[in-house]
Amino acid sequence: MNDIKVERLFINYKTLEAFKQFKEYGHQELSMLEDLESNIVENNSESPFYGAFYGDRLIARMSLYKVDAKYDSYFEPPQNYLELWKLEVLPDYQKRGYGKALVEFAKGFDLPIKTNPRVKSDRFWEKMGFQKAHYEMERDLGENPLIWLPKGVQEKELSH
Amino acid sequence: MNDIKVERLFINYKTLEAFKQFKEYGHQELSMLEDLESNIVENNSESPFYGAFYGDRLIARMSLYKVDAKYDSYFEPPQNYLELWKLEVLPDYQKRGYGKALVEFAKGFDLPIKTNPRVKSDRFWEKMGFQKAHYEMERDLGENPLIWLPKGVQEKELSH
Repeated sequence: MNDIKVERLFINYKTLEAFKQFKEYGHQELSMLEDLESNIVENNSESPFYGAFYGDRLIARMSLYKVDAKYDSYFEPPQNYLELWKLEVLPDYQKRGYGKALVEFAKGFDLPIKTNPRVKSDRFWEKMGFQKAHYEMERDLGENPLIWLPKGVQEKELSH
Repeated sequence: MNDIKVERLFINYKTLEAFKQFKEYGHQELSMLEDLESNIVENNSESPFYGAFYGDRLIARMSLYKVDAKYDSYFEPPQNYLELWKLEVLPDYQKRGYGKALVEFAKGFDLPIKTNPRVKSDRFWEKMGFQKAHYEMERDLGENPLIWLPKGVQEKELSH
């Protein structure tokens, strides 16, 4: 499955309808819908989501956001990094490389990546080269952060 | 069930063993166990967890952490608030008021509360007087934050 194409998704009614198929549908999607309905965002604006299609059906997606170096508390030296969330492949299309294709796409920006999976998926992330960040309560507040380090980047050392 | 007693939990092997019964067992618990094993924390140190027991069995818990006003981006005016996570009641003890007792306990500090439930539980939080925070991507990064406002506190207005 080397021919999976990852595309940036646009904010429009078709995308937002397709999002309803995914489990992790929440405030973010509702907020995008409201913004579209009230013309706060234009139809076909760029979204933070990237996805893969099977035919014309959206069957996998993730959200990516670049966090500015000044807010970085995970990497050494402090730098811009990507926060990845809502990586999800629809049940009928799992185990076919779509999740991997999305993560590889994210790695292609050559920035460190942080994610905080909601579901038990440690094996997948390990295969993708992610590692557990050392837990720091003041920073992580119950999250289970996983990080990916490009060459030359290290995890920030913690206080204890 | 007005007689449910909520107690602060101590970090010790008994507590950490009891935590394994809960679904939301993650980096935080593993980190506490490592800290205990390597004597970085003392046996019976105070933990951020509060719980309720049935006999001597821990059957409900939550974690609470006071966030300093300087990091507050949810409330108006900016102030100290509580971040609540890992509220969970073991399956056999649900619908008996334990979840409510824990949340009421948290409200007793009379600080605003923010939580980000991992499971679909909007009805419960609504009954507890929580409301959806307006979604702001730069701040919430895919979370579904819910907030509780004590008297005199408002939600912070967003930029758009």
